Amino acid sequence: MAKTLGFVGMGIMGLPMSLNLLRAGFQITVFNRTAERCQDAAEAGATVAPTPRALAEASDIIFLMLTGPEAVDMVVFGPDGAAQALTPSMTVVNMSTVSPGYTRKLASRIEATGARFVDAPVSGSKKPAEDGTLVILAGGEETDIAELQPMFDVMGKRTVHCGPASHGAAMKMSINLLLGTMMAGLAEMLHFGGKNGLDVDTMLDVVMSGPLANGLFQLKEPMLRTNEFPTQFPAKHMAKDLKFVVDTAYESGASAPCAHQVLQLFSKAVAQGLSEEDFAAVAKIF
Amino acid sequence: MAKTLGFVGMGIMGLPMSLNLLRAGFQITVFNRTAERCQDAAEAGATVAPTPRALAEASDIIFLMLTGPEAVDMVVFGPDGAAQALTPSMTVVNMSTVSPGYTRKLASRIEATGARFVDAPVSGSKKPAEDGTLVILAGGEETDIAELQPMFDVMGKRTVHCGPASHGAAMKMSINLLLGTMMAGLAEMLHFGGKNGLDVDTMLDVVMSGPLANGLFQLKEPMLRTNEFPTQFPAKHMAKDLKFVVDTAYESGASAPCAHQVLQLFSKAVAQGLSEEDFAAVAKIF
Amino acid sequence: MAKTLGFVGMGIMGLPMSLNLLRAGFQITVFNRTAERCQDAAEAGATVAPTPRALAEASDIIFLMLTGPEAVDMVVFGPDGAAQALTPSMTVVNMSTVSPGYTRKLASRIEATGARFVDAPVSGSKKPAEDGTLVILAGGEETDIAELQPMFDVMGKRTVHCGPASHGAAMKMSINLLLGTMMAGLAEMLHFGGKNGLDVDTMLDVVMSGPLANGLFQLKEPMLRTNEFPTQFPAKHMAKDLKFVVDTAYESGASAPCAHQVLQLFSKAVAQGLSEEDFAAVAKIF
Amino acid sequence: MAKTLGFVGMGIMGLPMSLNLLRAGFQITVFNRTAERCQDAAEAGATVAPTPRALAEASDIIFLMLTGPEAVDMVVFGPDGAAQALTPSMTVVNMSTVSPGYTRKLASRIEATGARFVDAPVSGSKKPAEDGTLVILAGGEETDIAELQPMFDVMGKRTVHCGPASHGAAMKMSINLLLGTMMAGLAEMLHFGGKNGLDVDTMLDVVMSGPLANGLFQLKEPMLRTNEFPTQFPAKHMAKDLKFVVDTAYESGASAPCAHQVLQLFSKAVAQGLSEEDFAAVAKIF
Repeated sequence: MAKTLGFVGMGIMGLPMSLNLLRAGFQITVFNRTAERCQDAAEAGATVAPTPRALAEASDIIFLMLTGPEAVDMVVFGPDGAAQALTPSMTVVNMSTVSPGYTRKLASRIEATGARFVDAPVSGSKKPAEDGTLVILAGGEETDIAELQPMFDVMGKRTVHCGPASHGAAMKMSINLLLGTMMAGLAEMLHFGGKNGLDVDTMLDVVMSGPLANGLFQLKEPMLRTNEFPTQFPAKHMAKDLKFVVDTAYESGASAPCAHQVLQLFSKAVAQGLSEEDFAAVAKIF
Repeated sequence: MAKTLGFVGMGIMGLPMSLNLLRAGFQITVFNRTAERCQDAAEAGATVAPTPRALAEASDIIFLMLTGPEAVDMVVFGPDGAAQALTPSMTVVNMSTVSPGYTRKLASRIEATGARFVDAPVSGSKKPAEDGTLVILAGGEETDIAELQPMFDVMGKRTVHCGPASHGAAMKMSINLLLGTMMAGLAEMLHFGGKNGLDVDTMLDVVMSGPLANGLFQLKEPMLRTNEFPTQFPAKHMAKDLKFVVDTAYESGASAPCAHQVLQLFSKAVAQGLSEEDFAAVAKIF
Repeated sequence: MAKTLGFVGMGIMGLPMSLNLLRAGFQITVFNRTAERCQDAAEAGATVAPTPRALAEASDIIFLMLTGPEAVDMVVFGPDGAAQALTPSMTVVNMSTVSPGYTRKLASRIEATGARFVDAPVSGSKKPAEDGTLVILAGGEETDIAELQPMFDVMGKRTVHCGPASHGAAMKMSINLLLGTMMAGLAEMLHFGGKNGLDVDTMLDVVMSGPLANGLFQLKEPMLRTNEFPTQFPAKHMAKDLKFVVDTAYESGASAPCAHQVLQLFSKAVAQGLSEEDFAAVAKIF
Repeated sequence: MAKTLGFVGMGIMGLPMSLNLLRAGFQITVFNRTAERCQDAAEAGATVAPTPRALAEASDIIFLMLTGPEAVDMVVFGPDGAAQALTPSMTVVNMSTVSPGYTRKLASRIEATGARFVDAPVSGSKKPAEDGTLVILAGGEETDIAELQPMFDVMGKRTVHCGPASHGAAMKMSINLLLGTMMAGLAEMLHFGGKNGLDVDTMLDVVMSGPLANGLFQLKEPMLRTNEFPTQFPAKHMAKDLKFVVDTAYESGASAPCAHQVLQLFSKAVAQGLSEEDFAAVAKIF
């Protein structure tokens, strides 16, 4: 008999991901703390649960796509939380971006109920979520991930098995460290060159025609040329993710000089009111 | 009548660049402080000058491709230096990597002789120098650069006119700032992920299959996978170039937090004896 | 009728502080997770409680001097925790070093029981704790702090009322930011001078005879001259406190470039096995 | 026969130092590029030389107290420079703040004339210069420094023999590294505490009553309380000195994370127009 799915979190990522699952024929129950955000999924065929607990009672596999650890704690362990309905036949899949340390604690609390746990944060933001072309960074048991593969194949173009639970989160942190550093490096370069008389367009031409050119810069190039930063991935989320990186570096004894530096730049962007702009707006703070 | 060319500096870059000019049919006189390095160019048809002054007396256009400002000062203004033979009909083209501040001083001292000056550092290292696929970052008068275009077209695949003299150097510094930051970011990511249980190969797979993939990382990927760093661009040159960036940031009032951080990382690599390895060996210091 | 006191935490700080209270004639019940550490206080006249809850039942005012937020959570909200016996007539005084953010949450959870809350971390380590010469950094209501003044006067030489609850923690973080930065600055100076041919003794002579001389450096001077670092305040605690500073900077939108830099230095000290040495041992990592 | 002295540089430091030498009965010839600044010394009995060369011709010992290496190069090696009149019976004493690397070059160029060289930068600014209470950081031969001791005793309260020539400069850089770091640390602490609700006066009270209190903070305390920064040591000089520190760290292979960080803070102060204010005004940039 087909597994029934639950999907918690109908935000900028969770909604298109759940719509892709619905389109692929999966049965889904959805929950969102702000209930009206469930509307689109409901119209596409999803059942709306009144509480995470109710969602858990109706599901074999529960996907979480939330804004961070506080939100995960709330829907799993809060009043009427999903944890109250977990059983050994169920699997919880956390796709939210959280730290490896948090993931290990979450895994052990969920496994204490008998349920299985997989962590599966994603690389890619709004557009790939809509197109089903995310990269899924999975951490957990081989067999559990194999069971989830059909759903991952609908939401993403590729699944990387990174190791046991929490290694998905570790990979996500690692990618974000590089992502933030490359973006900040480009922003600093444009500032530095500008102070030395170069214009932004010539600099971007040189970068984009050489070995440093890449998909990220291509995506942000129009923003940097026009100094307009419509949000693909908001600066506040980059700041938050880099804070997770710094926390994780501290916990794991990793040296992280670039991450510390770049966190400060994105924190400054947030302090200067750029929270909701795309994270490429870090170029404005220099 | 065809212009006669002088080429000073038969190092890892200057030699292949001058060989390309010879193959394209240009007449060249060459000079190198260590004279035996002129052998290959001589065999390919170049005349070897005993001093920079003798080279200048035989040339209309003098290209300099040296290790830094001290070397340039020595061959231009030292004993038997090129400056003693400069005349208003001549052009000096500095392709060595130096700072914009130094370039402005150099330009004014050369222009004081009546000769014209163009700065034209390059993006790309050994391989593109051999293949004639460098990117030439030119700063100077439009007409002077136009006159040099046939030679630039032999040495590079593309010439970018960045502005007046010193703007080529500014562009080179800007590119190096980004280059160093991206390399350090990748190295830090691999260390961070490793401390959190991930293996290098999986991390590189994820990076190289996503939007952060780029030509630089592709070039360094085999080094990082094998932990062997055969030199394409030595770590000591990256350190030196980043020191120029920090100097230039100071002089121009630019903020350069990433450059400062990354300079320290490459300085540490040098202090740990990695000077002569490829600059990707910065991965070893974490 | 005289207030009865409870004191939780018989560590390097809590033990001498409670002994001072006993000597001054206060009635105290003590608790420590490792029970044998209560021995000395018991011999000095303290009652030993089997659980934090039992301690709370016997006390009007409860002092906490623990290693961090996890320990505080455990003794207050854990099984048989103090929270279960809190009543509106009681006051909880947290003297442990924790972040302002944590303190605000702690205050609100304690105040929800009707009890009052004061935060009162201290400046000074082992020696001032023994001598009763700590500086008490108090945050809370004026009247609550006035009630505590007789006890603070026994434990410290001075009480500074910093503002409402959590401002004591904020002051402690602020002091630690400066403390860590000054220590790291001195260590870096000695390394830098050493690399340039100066000897440590001459440098310390110059520093200690000029306007930069201070009590901290005086305390650490013998360690730096002999390169032996018997623990007064362990490096791992400095690292932990600086992590709180960085966390608090992130939460409050403060810029903290020195704190980030210095945290990395102490984290490196910890990673190099210097956790238990005095924090002046940061000099060894350069 | 008594030695005749020359003193080059009648600025904020050089003028009071030369006045102290005059008061003590020494014969002095003075020179300043802006001649009118020699007025005060002339009225106190000094002879004014029209050029550095003329000064050298009239002097046995030449003191230099100038703004940096460019100024030293100009008066020593420029047109009508002192170098043209140097002889083996003479001593040049550079008291200007310059880097050890520059000092080594300067020493070797001066010694090439047969004259002796001592480097003797000072710790202390305007007030100690007036009061004759500077600390003289001397590098050179024991016998040369002994010969200078009577003059050093007039200008300073203490002479520290740091080693051979350039070690005075190294000591000065080392002190400045610590000076800049302590000042920046205090400024950052006040910002951090402020963002967390504390007021500046309470924070300064706590700092100044504990082991972190020192003469530097005492001097700057009124500035920080009033947010007015009348210049004792201008921010631009602190930035310049820290740039020398970073240059020297690079050259000597020293690790200097605090210096890099703090240089950026003072550079930012300069970029924000605080060049001429006291360097404690770095508090304004946070």
